[in-house]
Amino acid sequence: MSEPHFQRVALIGLGLIGSSIGWAAKRSGAAGEIVGYARSAETRETARRLGFCDTVTESAAAAANGADLVILCVPVGACGAVAAEIASYLKPGAIVSDVGSVKAAVIEAVAPHIPSGVHLVPGHPIAGTEHSGPESGFAELFDDRWCILTPPEHGDEAATHALTAFWESLGAKVTQMDAPHHDLVLAVTSHVPHAIAYTMVGVADDLARVTDREVIAFSAAGFRDFTRIAASDPVMWRDVFLANREATLDILGRFQEELFVLRRAIRTGDAQYLQDYFTHTRAIRRGIIDAGQDTPAPDFGRRNAGTTR
Amino acid sequence: MSEPHFQRVALIGLGLIGSSIGWAAKRSGAAGEIVGYARSAETRETARRLGFCDTVTESAAAAANGADLVILCVPVGACGAVAAEIASYLKPGAIVSDVGSVKAAVIEAVAPHIPSGVHLVPGHPIAGTEHSGPESGFAELFDDRWCILTPPEHGDEAATHALTAFWESLGAKVTQMDAPHHDLVLAVTSHVPHAIAYTMVGVADDLARVTDREVIAFSAAGFRDFTRIAASDPVMWRDVFLANREATLDILGRFQEELFVLRRAIRTGDAQYLQDYFTHTRAIRRGIIDAGQDTPAPDFGRRNAGTTR
Repeated sequence: MSEPHFQRVALIGLGLIGSSIGWAAKRSGAAGEIVGYARSAETRETARRLGFCDTVTESAAAAANGADLVILCVPVGACGAVAAEIASYLKPGAIVSDVGSVKAAVIEAVAPHIPSGVHLVPGHPIAGTEHSGPESGFAELFDDRWCILTPPEHGDEAATHALTAFWESLGAKVTQMDAPHHDLVLAVTSHVPHAIAYTMVGVADDLARVTDREVIAFSAAGFRDFTRIAASDPVMWRDVFLANREATLDILGRFQEELFVLRRAIRTGDAQYLQDYFTHTRAIRRGIIDAGQDTPAPDFGRRNAGTTR
Repeated sequence: MSEPHFQRVALIGLGLIGSSIGWAAKRSGAAGEIVGYARSAETRETARRLGFCDTVTESAAAAANGADLVILCVPVGACGAVAAEIASYLKPGAIVSDVGSVKAAVIEAVAPHIPSGVHLVPGHPIAGTEHSGPESGFAELFDDRWCILTPPEHGDEAATHALTAFWESLGAKVTQMDAPHHDLVLAVTSHVPHAIAYTMVGVADDLARVTDREVIAFSAAGFRDFTRIAASDPVMWRDVFLANREATLDILGRFQEELFVLRRAIRTGDAQYLQDYFTHTRAIRRGIIDAGQDTPAPDFGRRNAGTTR
């Protein structure tokens, strides 16, 4: 176990991401002390029982007080209020970061509250599961996953370096982007896919009522994967769509255009168009495997699918 | 190993499903002899090397000749032509089945070729991976998965029973539906989700060109799952959409209506609507887990995600 990167790390919000940071920091020894706070008394109690924080406080201010690194692990829409609450307790030289899926809106909400001499370095670990709450976290969540930092243009380089080292010690690969670009990339890779999955699950549910739950009973690969996506935390996603409204609507618009073209090809029976289109998208999957973001193993709900021959 | 259900089983088409039936039948001893045929010489050669058939023939007719059970494992659009080719070689009392994701169109194409005294019992195992070809099959593919049979209304009951027993011996759970109903249920649970995933991957690819492949590099959970869906066999899916056109377009239409409502909620910032909608879809996921069609374990590309505490 190496020297801790930060003597005192405060986690505000103890859901899937907050608790996983706690476990991962305990695993690596990256924090001398982990202090946590959650708004709900039940979550604080669970956190005390599970032990991924050394101390669980009764207010966000008490957690942030004296911390070298404060990470906001609350839904995007709550970041501004939390920043206001902890602002006067932040110690000079402290770093404030977050884990939100949207960056420009978080910066806009948080930055005005950050005192001079405190460094805001927003972050977004691209990792998660469809589960939420303090019991869903685990130390390996960030292993080999990207964490994107969006430091301000003339921010403190030492702070960015320290936060980079911290995330690397949690197992993540770290890169930097400017906030609006991050928000566009994530709209494509995450936000719009989630909007679509939520919508399709909603459509299916309407029909399930006329088909006696068969839609669920015979749920095939495609839909089953959608429901997993659509099971993610409702408040977190509500905030993501509201905070990344512009990019989400832009990409949703392109999606609907493209879907109209595909619908027309189906309606007119354009076999060549369909085959070419599907062949092309298959190649993109290959690119993702090559980029190391997934494995080629088939796992359509069939984990540990082996081969008996 | 029990008595074989069928002395001679012919598999026409040796891709993911055909080869998996071969492996699963070898595992269970459900077939006295497995004879296979594939249109491509390369596939036939691979099948001979891998050994999931006892014999690989040089024509579909030679495979079907004398078989007690013939299963068409070719894309939906090819079933009619194969049926015409093998029709005069089918022995009296033989059963002809298939594995297509669409049933009404397959019956329409195949039934006219089936001689009197031969029993057509269409089937659809709801199982698959995003891989295709003779090397992608494995014996466990059908374990605990549904196989839906769509026997004709006044068809031979003994034939349906025999095919049911065969699929059960391959590990599947078997149920019956009428063909149009099957096609509607599958449009919801599989066909439209695939159309959507293909479309979203296409949109992302357009944008990837302006963002230096970042869309792939930082591919998050939602999109990564979509690309897996969109990597499925292009010819198979072309045929599915053409053969199940009506139900697919109906469900796609409902999906687009619903997506317009969600878009409006995002644009107008209707936080309550979004949260309620996402809470509702999360509950549906719970229903699928309860129905035994998936596990609650998080596996967003993170197989064997454990907990280190």
